[in-house]
Amino acid sequence: MPFRNIAVGRYEEVTHPGTLKCALAEFISTLIFVFAGEGSVVAYAKLTSGAALTPSGLVGVAICHGLALFVAVAISANISGGHVNPAVTFGLFVGGNITLFKGIVYWIAQLVGAAVACLLLKAVTDGMTTSPHALSSGEPVWGALVLEIVITFGLVYTVYATAVDPRSKGNVGILAPLAIGLIVAANILFAGAFDGGSMNPARSFGPALVALDFTDHWVYWVGPLLGGLIAGAVYEVLILPSDEPHHEPLASEY
Amino acid sequence: MPFRNIAVGRYEEVTHPGTLKCALAEFISTLIFVFAGEGSVVAYAKLTSGAALTPSGLVGVAICHGLALFVAVAISANISGGHVNPAVTFGLFVGGNITLFKGIVYWIAQLVGAAVACLLLKAVTDGMTTSPHALSSGEPVWGALVLEIVITFGLVYTVYATAVDPRSKGNVGILAPLAIGLIVAANILFAGAFDGGSMNPARSFGPALVALDFTDHWVYWVGPLLGGLIAGAVYEVLILPSDEPHHEPLASEY
Amino acid sequence: MPFRNIAVGRYEEVTHPGTLKCALAEFISTLIFVFAGEGSVVAYAKLTSGAALTPSGLVGVAICHGLALFVAVAISANISGGHVNPAVTFGLFVGGNITLFKGIVYWIAQLVGAAVACLLLKAVTDGMTTSPHALSSGEPVWGALVLEIVITFGLVYTVYATAVDPRSKGNVGILAPLAIGLIVAANILFAGAFDGGSMNPARSFGPALVALDFTDHWVYWVGPLLGGLIAGAVYEVLILPSDEPHHEPLASEY
Amino acid sequence: MPFRNIAVGRYEEVTHPGTLKCALAEFISTLIFVFAGEGSVVAYAKLTSGAALTPSGLVGVAICHGLALFVAVAISANISGGHVNPAVTFGLFVGGNITLFKGIVYWIAQLVGAAVACLLLKAVTDGMTTSPHALSSGEPVWGALVLEIVITFGLVYTVYATAVDPRSKGNVGILAPLAIGLIVAANILFAGAFDGGSMNPARSFGPALVALDFTDHWVYWVGPLLGGLIAGAVYEVLILPSDEPHHEPLASEY
Repeated sequence: MPFRNIAVGRYEEVTHPGTLKCALAEFISTLIFVFAGEGSVVAYAKLTSGAALTPSGLVGVAICHGLALFVAVAISANISGGHVNPAVTFGLFVGGNITLFKGIVYWIAQLVGAAVACLLLKAVTDGMTTSPHALSSGEPVWGALVLEIVITFGLVYTVYATAVDPRSKGNVGILAPLAIGLIVAANILFAGAFDGGSMNPARSFGPALVALDFTDHWVYWVGPLLGGLIAGAVYEVLILPSDEPHHEPLASEY
Repeated sequence: MPFRNIAVGRYEEVTHPGTLKCALAEFISTLIFVFAGEGSVVAYAKLTSGAALTPSGLVGVAICHGLALFVAVAISANISGGHVNPAVTFGLFVGGNITLFKGIVYWIAQLVGAAVACLLLKAVTDGMTTSPHALSSGEPVWGALVLEIVITFGLVYTVYATAVDPRSKGNVGILAPLAIGLIVAANILFAGAFDGGSMNPARSFGPALVALDFTDHWVYWVGPLLGGLIAGAVYEVLILPSDEPHHEPLASEY
Repeated sequence: MPFRNIAVGRYEEVTHPGTLKCALAEFISTLIFVFAGEGSVVAYAKLTSGAALTPSGLVGVAICHGLALFVAVAISANISGGHVNPAVTFGLFVGGNITLFKGIVYWIAQLVGAAVACLLLKAVTDGMTTSPHALSSGEPVWGALVLEIVITFGLVYTVYATAVDPRSKGNVGILAPLAIGLIVAANILFAGAFDGGSMNPARSFGPALVALDFTDHWVYWVGPLLGGLIAGAVYEVLILPSDEPHHEPLASEY
Repeated sequence: MPFRNIAVGRYEEVTHPGTLKCALAEFISTLIFVFAGEGSVVAYAKLTSGAALTPSGLVGVAICHGLALFVAVAISANISGGHVNPAVTFGLFVGGNITLFKGIVYWIAQLVGAAVACLLLKAVTDGMTTSPHALSSGEPVWGALVLEIVITFGLVYTVYATAVDPRSKGNVGILAPLAIGLIVAANILFAGAFDGGSMNPARSFGPALVALDFTDHWVYWVGPLLGGLIAGAVYEVLILPSDEPHHEPLASEY
């Protein structure tokens, strides 16, 4: 059952300094990822004086997100498990791979990291406006919602298949951070033209907070969280071998 | 001999739940790959209001296919062997690496996955038309046929050399999903300008079905299947060491 | 404490031929990296007859730097530790991972490698001008300084997490050169539009020396060195497990 | 001494079928590499009706070469050692890592593979002209010669550091095919604007033969061979540990 292993928390988590190290690692990784990713959007505006997105502009934005997320996951993989995304944390919670207490700590670290990244970004560009994720002209809200569900399903399924599944150890597990980063690049090369391609509520939250613009912001929470929920449930119930232990791979999981 | 190990099926395959898990993994991987890949084509049309393909547009489409296929192969490698392509399944069947029964199950899963991806794609973009693979102006049918044969030969040869060949374990085998994805990106950077660069009948089938446009569609079946056939035969007969066991590496082969 | 392991030097370092091999490896790696990286900037000027940077131009420059740095780090990793950057050497010195003596030898090798690369570059392009890093129009000096601090922090933190941290061995450590190269590509896709995106005083020094243009040059020393200092201190004090030995991983550390 | 291990041949090489397998592997890998690489140049001409190269066009061509070479090296690494380039074979010969007899067999396989690739390319594109490497306007011959020497030095040095050096086994050696492919991509992002960026006489020979245009063709032989010679000599004499055995790693070297 997908919810069979859900846990509220463990005593050691609250008292052990390891939880703080995990939070710090998630904070720094999310900061580095959002700083570069949202920064590439602002750079496009700077180089084109705010022109509409072109295909070559989308290539730059998508590659930047993919490479930065690869690194952000790699540098926190051995400390916090390399979530860097509230939807990933939620998808792992659904499968019983992180407790509720620790998950909330991760969410706070990720959201604060994204917010600090966007504040820094505004400062170093002498006040350029951050661009919150938004629906492109003609894209309906329900379309963007389903789009975020499908692409985040792909992302969290990739996390399960390459980093949680014990069969990935020693083979595709070595490429896990690369796969997690590059599925985001591939998805942005499609979704970027329709709703920006978030898959990550923290990535959407930072620019929205700094620009104080929360138009359609709920789409970038509900879509990714539902996608992560479905991916976690599908992988736990239908794909994982039932007779192998695989829980609590938070640290050293790659 | 290339056809020496061909098998119709095994009793356990029909009754064992593992075959269903393989089918599900192939379905999900093909869905994720075709959703992003065909999505990048639709995104180009969205951003340019349907302009003709430019070199920078081709870069985005090729990179998207390469990265998405890398991930699609990586996330199913330990479950179904990571085919994600009827031509790969056929090329492995020729070399005796999958039975006829299981191969047919894989084909169905791949084709349904591609079709569902394109239906979802149409829904989330509010009804934008999917673009089936087509010959560019001035490209003859026989030219596209040979082109698909040659580039699919390269793809299936890569599958054999990095994922089937027992000598690849522990060295280039770790990079197998990356090599399989990126040879497709490289080939699209050439073939994309002439016939779209399919190498994969499922990738071509999904958009053709949803657009109900099967012009020259046979080219994208006959070409890739012949390329996969030649690659499987060449690798089995001329390259593989004859004295080492190497069959049935479907799961855990990377 | 971040400065607890700082050492001036060791007797063997001065007499052992290994120090010279390390210097040669750093010289060659920095030469290859700067030759390609600065070369891609000159190539853009050649192809566009000196036009202003566009988003697609930035993609080429960023990818070139990322891929060249990946290779430059990989080919010196087993010899000198793969620094290729005075800010990385300084960040590792702060954490006690290299002595002052050896660090100075590395700096000299890196700066000479960058200078020779730019002299060669000028020669093979029949005298085209190298372009030193410069602030884009409207970017204030203090903005560029903070920008260099933040992105170099990300780079040196990546070096610590993937190459110095003993927990990375056998998992993300295998991808260390790739992560180090690609975080630079991601950061240039943002910072390239504002201050060029250096993160590396040697990368900035070579073109400035050959063009004899040191405008704002101090920014590309102070920013990266401060970023490396903070990353080294944060990683040593807050992230590294305190009870594991991890010092002197200069050679064979990946 | 760099030439201390040079050998003319061994009796087994002539009679053993392994030499033929190596030749076949080099032939197929070079065919796949040149077909995609030169194909991306022809695709650019097709999409732009023969316009001059732009920065975004150069990105597509460079990425195609880098990814295709990565795969070409990976799929022949365990069979022939993954040379795919007469300059690499020559650089390995200089260091005593391949005999004269086997090196000549490799050269023939590589040149025939490149020629067949370009003939196939002309056929599938209905007779489009292949474009031999050529000097861009204003680039002097001696500049191109030195450019090819320096960038091929970087390529062959990368082969030595990641695939020949015994210290790379189990760490950066796993990424060797990727490093070898991507240094070529990085170098083309610079040299592509000046002389095409060959680093590989076979890559230059195929299009020149099919187009029957050998203008400045010697530059693409002398430059790469000198670069490979210098890299082999420098690595063998100055970098390799003198007390470890490292010769004849032709097969299974990654």
